[in-house]
Amino acid sequence: MERNVYLKLTDVDEARTRWFDALEAGDRSPLAVEEVSLEAARHRTLATPAAALLSSPAFHGAAMDGIAVKASDTFGASQHRPKTLRINKEAFWINTGQPLPQGCDAVIMMENVIPRAFEPDAVDVEQAAFPWQHVRKLGEDMVATEILLPPGTVIGAYELGALAAAGILRPAVFARPRVAIIPSGSELVPLAQADRTLLQQGRQLPEFNSLILSALVRDAGGDPEVLGIVPDDPGSIAEALREAVKGPYDLVAVNAGSSAGSHDFTAHVVAEEGELLVHGVNVMPGKPTILGKVGGKPVIGVPGYPISAIIAFEEFAQPLLTLWQKRRMPRRATGAVTPFQPLPSKAGLEERIRVKLGRVGDKLLAVPLPRGAGTVTSLSRADGIIAIPPASEGIPAETPVTAAFLRTQEQIDGALLVIGSHDNTLDLLDSFLRKRFPRFSLASAHVGSMGGLTAIRNGHCHLAGSHLLDAATGVYNQADIARHLAGIPVKLVRLADREQGLIVMPGNPANITDIADLARSGVTFVNRQRGSGTRVLLDYRLSKLGISPDAIQGYENEEYTHMNVAAAVLSGRATTGLGVRAAANALGLEFIPAGVEEYDLVIPARHWDDERMQALMAVIRSAEYRDAATSMGGYIMVRTGEVVWEFAG
Amino acid sequence: MERNVYLKLTDVDEARTRWFDALEAGDRSPLAVEEVSLEAARHRTLATPAAALLSSPAFHGAAMDGIAVKASDTFGASQHRPKTLRINKEAFWINTGQPLPQGCDAVIMMENVIPRAFEPDAVDVEQAAFPWQHVRKLGEDMVATEILLPPGTVIGAYELGALAAAGILRPAVFARPRVAIIPSGSELVPLAQADRTLLQQGRQLPEFNSLILSALVRDAGGDPEVLGIVPDDPGSIAEALREAVKGPYDLVAVNAGSSAGSHDFTAHVVAEEGELLVHGVNVMPGKPTILGKVGGKPVIGVPGYPISAIIAFEEFAQPLLTLWQKRRMPRRATGAVTPFQPLPSKAGLEERIRVKLGRVGDKLLAVPLPRGAGTVTSLSRADGIIAIPPASEGIPAETPVTAAFLRTQEQIDGALLVIGSHDNTLDLLDSFLRKRFPRFSLASAHVGSMGGLTAIRNGHCHLAGSHLLDAATGVYNQADIARHLAGIPVKLVRLADREQGLIVMPGNPANITDIADLARSGVTFVNRQRGSGTRVLLDYRLSKLGISPDAIQGYENEEYTHMNVAAAVLSGRATTGLGVRAAANALGLEFIPAGVEEYDLVIPARHWDDERMQALMAVIRSAEYRDAATSMGGYIMVRTGEVVWEFAG
Repeated sequence: MERNVYLKLTDVDEARTRWFDALEAGDRSPLAVEEVSLEAARHRTLATPAAALLSSPAFHGAAMDGIAVKASDTFGASQHRPKTLRINKEAFWINTGQPLPQGCDAVIMMENVIPRAFEPDAVDVEQAAFPWQHVRKLGEDMVATEILLPPGTVIGAYELGALAAAGILRPAVFARPRVAIIPSGSELVPLAQADRTLLQQGRQLPEFNSLILSALVRDAGGDPEVLGIVPDDPGSIAEALREAVKGPYDLVAVNAGSSAGSHDFTAHVVAEEGELLVHGVNVMPGKPTILGKVGGKPVIGVPGYPISAIIAFEEFAQPLLTLWQKRRMPRRATGAVTPFQPLPSKAGLEERIRVKLGRVGDKLLAVPLPRGAGTVTSLSRADGIIAIPPASEGIPAETPVTAAFLRTQEQIDGALLVIGSHDNTLDLLDSFLRKRFPRFSLASAHVGSMGGLTAIRNGHCHLAGSHLLDAATGVYNQADIARHLAGIPVKLVRLADREQGLIVMPGNPANITDIADLARSGVTFVNRQRGSGTRVLLDYRLSKLGISPDAIQGYENEEYTHMNVAAAVLSGRATTGLGVRAAANALGLEFIPAGVEEYDLVIPARHWDDERMQALMAVIRSAEYRDAATSMGGYIMVRTGEVVWEFAG
Repeated sequence: MERNVYLKLTDVDEARTRWFDALEAGDRSPLAVEEVSLEAARHRTLATPAAALLSSPAFHGAAMDGIAVKASDTFGASQHRPKTLRINKEAFWINTGQPLPQGCDAVIMMENVIPRAFEPDAVDVEQAAFPWQHVRKLGEDMVATEILLPPGTVIGAYELGALAAAGILRPAVFARPRVAIIPSGSELVPLAQADRTLLQQGRQLPEFNSLILSALVRDAGGDPEVLGIVPDDPGSIAEALREAVKGPYDLVAVNAGSSAGSHDFTAHVVAEEGELLVHGVNVMPGKPTILGKVGGKPVIGVPGYPISAIIAFEEFAQPLLTLWQKRRMPRRATGAVTPFQPLPSKAGLEERIRVKLGRVGDKLLAVPLPRGAGTVTSLSRADGIIAIPPASEGIPAETPVTAAFLRTQEQIDGALLVIGSHDNTLDLLDSFLRKRFPRFSLASAHVGSMGGLTAIRNGHCHLAGSHLLDAATGVYNQADIARHLAGIPVKLVRLADREQGLIVMPGNPANITDIADLARSGVTFVNRQRGSGTRVLLDYRLSKLGISPDAIQGYENEEYTHMNVAAAVLSGRATTGLGVRAAANALGLEFIPAGVEEYDLVIPARHWDDERMQALMAVIRSAEYRDAATSMGGYIMVRTGEVVWEFAG
């Protein structure tokens, strides 16, 4: 199997410049200019300055309802000596927007026009009008030939109004840049044709990067076309590329399959068919990007992992489409955020870390999401992105750093940050909260119950989810709160009583019946991480049973959520694991109950009156939410929303 | 003619709440839920929580290229005692993304796999693999049944990726809200059918509000339908409204013609056909808004002036469409700006003042645009909006106030603010600047040459346009700069030498030949404002000729731009006015030359090295720009870009 190492990694900005220079992208736009109707012009980009064809207003018009007059006819009018004006001779009824009759140069508003008794054809005015009073003069808004909108303007509702008022009924706009997207990879199948079983066996990979890239092309004003999936061999890729550059496209994107071999094929093909300008950039995700020029047309080799593909496209393809249209590249707003924990980073590579954000007190806390380039949800869930420069080895905790925001300030400020133990009902709670209070949301990060209490102590979150059993008293949460949160008054609110149990394969092939079975030979276990409530519960039960952790095979295999424990059982990585019923139900697994535990929310008193928290409490206490959680199975929602304990600090 | 006064004006928030409450808008969405393909789902809004149908990855897969192994087979390997693994027995070649063979639980990356000489079927490893090293575990990104996206999510590129990865090929989205738009007004004609002559006589008004409102409906995720134009009488409006509420629409908007009479018809009709909830809100523009309910459906009476119509739609119709879809209403970013001059405001009304913005030093300066509700360009040109609350009578100059931004921070920061005398070549310069440097722009405000020098002195702009003739020396600009800008070093850069002259109707019916003719009986003049260079030039010439301003009829009629002077002549408001040739050319008027004057840019030394300024200078000095200005007529661009004088301050 032939393999290639990357050429020298190039800085993102340098790579972009090298590609743009080779294309003369700043000077030579391949886009035609076309005139389109105003109906079709929305979201298109002006190619030439839009100069008014008409003046607006096109005449002197009334700016008020009333009478049009010649101002000099009213000079000298006063309350004691009103002037009488004859209708249709010296005074003309006029509505806002109507043109002034010949000879008139002012409007007197209705409220100041006094009807004369028994004389319907005359009115009195008690105050002189000054010339051009309440008149919209010709050209007040725009004068014919004036430039209204510069080229590069993206046409929205306001611009449509200006163009229409100016009589520009067919503005000149850039033709949409056309982008060919070639998915490549032998295991890829079109999304709609994917077979569930083959997907689960890894014998098929659903092809959906082209869907994402198409949306990114449209976001940049372009017109995507997805060509057929090309197998992972140099000949096929070369043929597809040759065909595409001959086609009506302005840019060709080759999207590698997820196998690294194909990246190299693409680079070779670009080098052989044209010019290979960049092979590998020093950004992570996004490293295996290829930039080149074939048949005079720009070609981008987009990495296979979705997050890498998105970053490569946003850094290189979108700016090119934007530049050709003379548009401004929209940049995200940025601001300082405080990482909740240290963010280590590889030196020599710029790392883009996706984060959840929550404004707690005066700090905007950032909680990192999984870094993998394949975790597509790390972008759909993210509120912001922290870029750690190549020269840095990472960011220490509590050190402010710049993030680019994916949400508006208002959305970020509307989020409650819950850190601690994970529970499925928290995701459900977020959905119900957003539905009822669209301004608010619940951003959650999963670090286990103890991690949640630590976050509360450090002021790193608004609330924490916790289910920590005290071995001495058998009471949940109170002992640990008293121990770790001295000086911090909190309320303890019941979210759910939930069943914990052993998750096993359907039919329970290993015949697991209780915790004691974990020490049996041949049984492998998947554990939760240290500090999680489930781990505390397990250790409590083991010590009661007198079983040493050493006796349990897989005790050291840690997962961070119930769902991942269930997934480990489903995949055969472990015989069983301890978790909630909902996780077992979700994956069609069997559940051996091991008891009911108390899952509570720890809420510092200082956040209790926050309007977001009160909204959350209203949702927690709603029948709608409790019913939905109950129907997931394994939850007893009777005490949900109750303040079960108050800790004075 | 029957007329009505407004009912009591209602606060915007109160009006919205009253309308929403009457509609039970928060609880009862009229929108159906439909399942659409992912291709069709872009920009649609999720109606239900999107729960993963598949786990992702769907299997344990390699995260690196290399060999898949069982970790325990490698335990004990070291550089001195490598472990030998047989290919396809203990080690399996694997590419990133491929599933691990049964029994394997780790991947060793290519770089650490050592081929054995003469043994193609075996490799050595010199380091133990730990379990799950370089493996993407089943469910690492998402686990089936997990909620990925909450309802109300607007689906973009990232969300499409998450939905596809989760196997959700037909997400449940809200049906687009359907909005009927009924234009009403007897003078209105469809835009495409408008006759230029009738428009200029005010006998026709082009109907284009429906185009703007349709774009605003689409921006909020809705589906607009523009119904036929309805004449301005209660019977016709009532019939159109009755028909529309019976139709397949979720919201009906009646857009009054610009005559105020029609607003009242709409209010009456709504009251008679259903329930009139609000008639008049205390916001300006936007006051004559009507909110009601007919046949159980929401009805909005939208004012006739475009800016009023937009504000009414943004305050009431868009939030309703957004709420129905459980979307978050996008709010504009806000920040502190400093008004360049006092902003008076009527007490009792909230005023929305559109402003140009420029960051000068550490202040974001705001220059107000025309306030009229009919000046549609005041929104298309605006960078921000300052809302002055009803209780306030205005904002003093230099007092920071909050503005909502219509541009990104980057766009605002890229703008150079030029204040002073107006010249058409400045608009042209903005177009050329944006074209060559898409990050930068030139925001101009017109207050005359002296106003420009004052703005320089106060640090209110980056540069000023000036053509101030010194009567004593005959030299332009230098004397006034020396007099008014003591302590402020500036460079004086020639923008253009331009012809000034008398603008007259085609054929010059009053036979104007020079400035002396202005004093002739029967000749009316339109002047420029005090402090403008043109005014200084006029006064200089008059004094040389010994003509008193009192002898000139219309000397006191002031306009702020050359174009408006030309418009005054075209409309017959004045026989002639002094202005540049370009303005006369633009409106097809005749031009009697009265001399060449020097139009310069005054640039403080402290802004000279600013990258925006250097970009501007590069454009000013380009042949492309100079040629375009020359071809407008009346400009001599020979010394353009030359630093003609430096003032040490």
